Amino acid sequence: MQVNEVVAYIQARKDRFVADLREWLAIPSISGDPAYAGDVRRSAEWLAGHLSEQGFPTVEIWETQGHPAVYAEWPAEDPDAPAVVVYGHHDVQPVEPLEEWDTDPFKPVEKGDRLIGRGASDDKGQVFFHTLGLRAGLAASGRAAPPVTIKLLVEGEEESGSVHFADLLHAHRDRLACDAVVISDTTMWSADVPSMCTGMRGLTEAEVTLRGPSRDLHSGSFGGAVPNPLQAMAVLMSALHDADGRVTLPGFYDDVVPLTDEERDLFARLPFNEDEWLQSAGDSRAAHGEKGYTTLERIWARPTAEINGMWGGHTGPGGKTIVPHEAHAKVSFRLVAGQDPRKVQQAFEAWVEEHTPNGVEAEVRMQPGGVRPCFSPIDSPSVKAARRAMERAFGTEVLFTREGGSGPEADLADVLEAPLVFVAVGLNGDRIHATNEKVEIPLLLKGAEAAAYLWEELAVALR
Amino acid sequence: MQVNEVVAYIQARKDRFVADLREWLAIPSISGDPAYAGDVRRSAEWLAGHLSEQGFPTVEIWETQGHPAVYAEWPAEDPDAPAVVVYGHHDVQPVEPLEEWDTDPFKPVEKGDRLIGRGASDDKGQVFFHTLGLRAGLAASGRAAPPVTIKLLVEGEEESGSVHFADLLHAHRDRLACDAVVISDTTMWSADVPSMCTGMRGLTEAEVTLRGPSRDLHSGSFGGAVPNPLQAMAVLMSALHDADGRVTLPGFYDDVVPLTDEERDLFARLPFNEDEWLQSAGDSRAAHGEKGYTTLERIWARPTAEINGMWGGHTGPGGKTIVPHEAHAKVSFRLVAGQDPRKVQQAFEAWVEEHTPNGVEAEVRMQPGGVRPCFSPIDSPSVKAARRAMERAFGTEVLFTREGGSGPEADLADVLEAPLVFVAVGLNGDRIHATNEKVEIPLLLKGAEAAAYLWEELAVALR
Ligand SMILES: [Zn+2]
Ligand SMILES: [Zn+2]
Repeated sequence: MQVNEVVAYIQARKDRFVADLREWLAIPSISGDPAYAGDVRRSAEWLAGHLSEQGFPTVEIWETQGHPAVYAEWPAEDPDAPAVVVYGHHDVQPVEPLEEWDTDPFKPVEKGDRLIGRGASDDKGQVFFHTLGLRAGLAASGRAAPPVTIKLLVEGEEESGSVHFADLLHAHRDRLACDAVVISDTTMWSADVPSMCTGMRGLTEAEVTLRGPSRDLHSGSFGGAVPNPLQAMAVLMSALHDADGRVTLPGFYDDVVPLTDEERDLFARLPFNEDEWLQSAGDSRAAHGEKGYTTLERIWARPTAEINGMWGGHTGPGGKTIVPHEAHAKVSFRLVAGQDPRKVQQAFEAWVEEHTPNGVEAEVRMQPGGVRPCFSPIDSPSVKAARRAMERAFGTEVLFTREGGSGPEADLADVLEAPLVFVAVGLNGDRIHATNEKVEIPLLLKGAEAAAYLWEELAVALR
Repeated sequence: MQVNEVVAYIQARKDRFVADLREWLAIPSISGDPAYAGDVRRSAEWLAGHLSEQGFPTVEIWETQGHPAVYAEWPAEDPDAPAVVVYGHHDVQPVEPLEEWDTDPFKPVEKGDRLIGRGASDDKGQVFFHTLGLRAGLAASGRAAPPVTIKLLVEGEEESGSVHFADLLHAHRDRLACDAVVISDTTMWSADVPSMCTGMRGLTEAEVTLRGPSRDLHSGSFGGAVPNPLQAMAVLMSALHDADGRVTLPGFYDDVVPLTDEERDLFARLPFNEDEWLQSAGDSRAAHGEKGYTTLERIWARPTAEINGMWGGHTGPGGKTIVPHEAHAKVSFRLVAGQDPRKVQQAFEAWVEEHTPNGVEAEVRMQPGGVRPCFSPIDSPSVKAARRAMERAFGTEVLFTREGGSGPEADLADVLEAPLVFVAVGLNGDRIHATNEKVEIPLLLKGAEAAAYLWEELAVALR
């Protein structure tokens, strides 16, 4: 395969690529608003038609209890070749407040190198570069089929929580059997600093209720002589972290896959501006977290405990001098590679039980399940292969990031039992989920180029 | 003065006393409900008429911005004799839920020794025994005027917060000039264990707001790397007490008048049943408070800090994985003898400022003013005199209690600059503020007897 041929193929089809993408972007496939259900279906149908047109031998609409997904398969010539699932989504976020858009979110506009419209980056644009890349690879290699079997799965409910996605995966588990999963729904550090995500934090959530007296008591008559559940809650919640910002649950860090020196070095090479980051964090006044880790390490690769909500007693205007009868808190844990949500749940329940003072009764309600963290080590064969493809496309070293939150990726890893590889060219500045979402067209073309090289790299790595 | 003559006088007029009280109790002087404003005035007028009838040379209705008070004066013969203000109130609590009353709250009923009706104990009955006692004392001594000048002040807004009471005191400060204030609006330990209250806790209230980012942040993207205001609030509030249950504000205990060994001994002699007390405290599961003090000492004679309310972040159903942008808490301090609400306010503001972590902004809003604690040492001349009067009436040792909360008493002490003496015969079991309020008629008559002895005891003590 000649690099020049791949680039030449992509450049030659650039206008058509953008024109087709604009057509798709014009369909308002907002999955979170029932009023757009027909549009989400239209989006799936449009994509299915496009994929057939582009040569996918198998294209299907997969129904769910909610919005439909699109499945397309392009088998390798060699029946023993590895198979790779490519994941993306065709639904988009709502567009409110509409008056803050400079252009109609569903009338995509090109401004210089940018394409502006809802879904341009998240995730239609990033789904779209795969077909162009695949065809460029085929053209350059002169083959009729890719070196791995490609199984493109484009769901329609990601922006509304992927509610039926795990069911969908289980229903089609056999057909989705694969050796790796390529995720194209993340971002790169910046246009100048191409990067790959290697993991996402998991999650488990709990609600704690502490009960004292059977009713609110007058603090004049009883204050100072009976336990105050709010006081007990403050003590409990304050004990969840030590002075070094570490979570105090026994065994919490035992299973954590530690950051390697190499990964820390690579993180450190990202041109991170903490002041700008704090500004993006709601103008936070200072960084704060686990001692011994940088801000990026804290949000990407370290587990955390957060109080998401807390309440009890008199919360209205004015004073009410009571000892409240109960106190509540919502707590969530972000989990990283190696941690099991169920183990953390058990540890938290036991810890609350143990730390609840005499005279107060505790109840812990865990949200069932939780989200497992997902992680692909930077020295794993598929990550190394994808990195080579990205480096060939960008002509420069590709660094690594992670993401602090999670979508349906852990389901893919769990149900399909295959390693995840994140190949994406969106930017943090693409304003995804916000007004005036855009994508950089040259980066989408770089994405196509990387996708052109990806399959031969993975074919070697996964064999 | 002969004891027998006092008792004989009171017994002879017992029926008339109860009949008159029943007439007064039939007036629904609910100060908290504007619909009863006319009745509160009628109650004041009825009392004024009664006091004139009973021989008070001066009787006046004192207007306020709210409900009227009644003022009656009976000067001593000797113009140099001490003057004593007697405080009570003629308004009553609402009666809801009406269906839980066994009889009409405003159609007083005698059942055996009990008189049942709203205000029977709190506070009409306790105001009422003073006139009978005063007349019994005069009759027994054969004098036309009491040995001290008596200034009876019966307000009409106690059950709705005594909102205009301080103004009333300031307006009539000269006429209310006195050497002591007798308060008849508290309770005794029990019918078998007569006691006197010697102090009430003061109060100061604050609301604390901690601010972090300018908006709620996604805990996946930012959690673990910026300060969480709810976490900071938990740490702050948990630091308000040490492991021994003591309040950690610097200097908080510096001005506290310590309990004397004698007072602790007398408290300890009260037949206190902690299990029953816990049951009355909303079935609290355990006593809890400052180390080294009993439950009674904790609620009566030790200052406290209570979290009355706390809230922030997501408090609705389900989960929301955010780092909340702010957190709130309402805190109140009960204060005891020697403590100054303003000093505690300043200490709290400084403490919050000092203990707020980097990256979080704190705001403290104190409720202006606060309530000063009031306290009369058990060895003070007026308390000793009143105790003698009570012991003569009850024929047994009189013990001491205090109260954990406060009404307008501190205003009386502050504006009139005179010591308070609590003389009352209500019981904790009188169901004041509740349904089926009652008073024990024999205790009201004991109150009248104590009042008969009180003025000569005080005349000697205050001279
Ligand atoms: Zn997306
Ligand atoms: Zn009262």
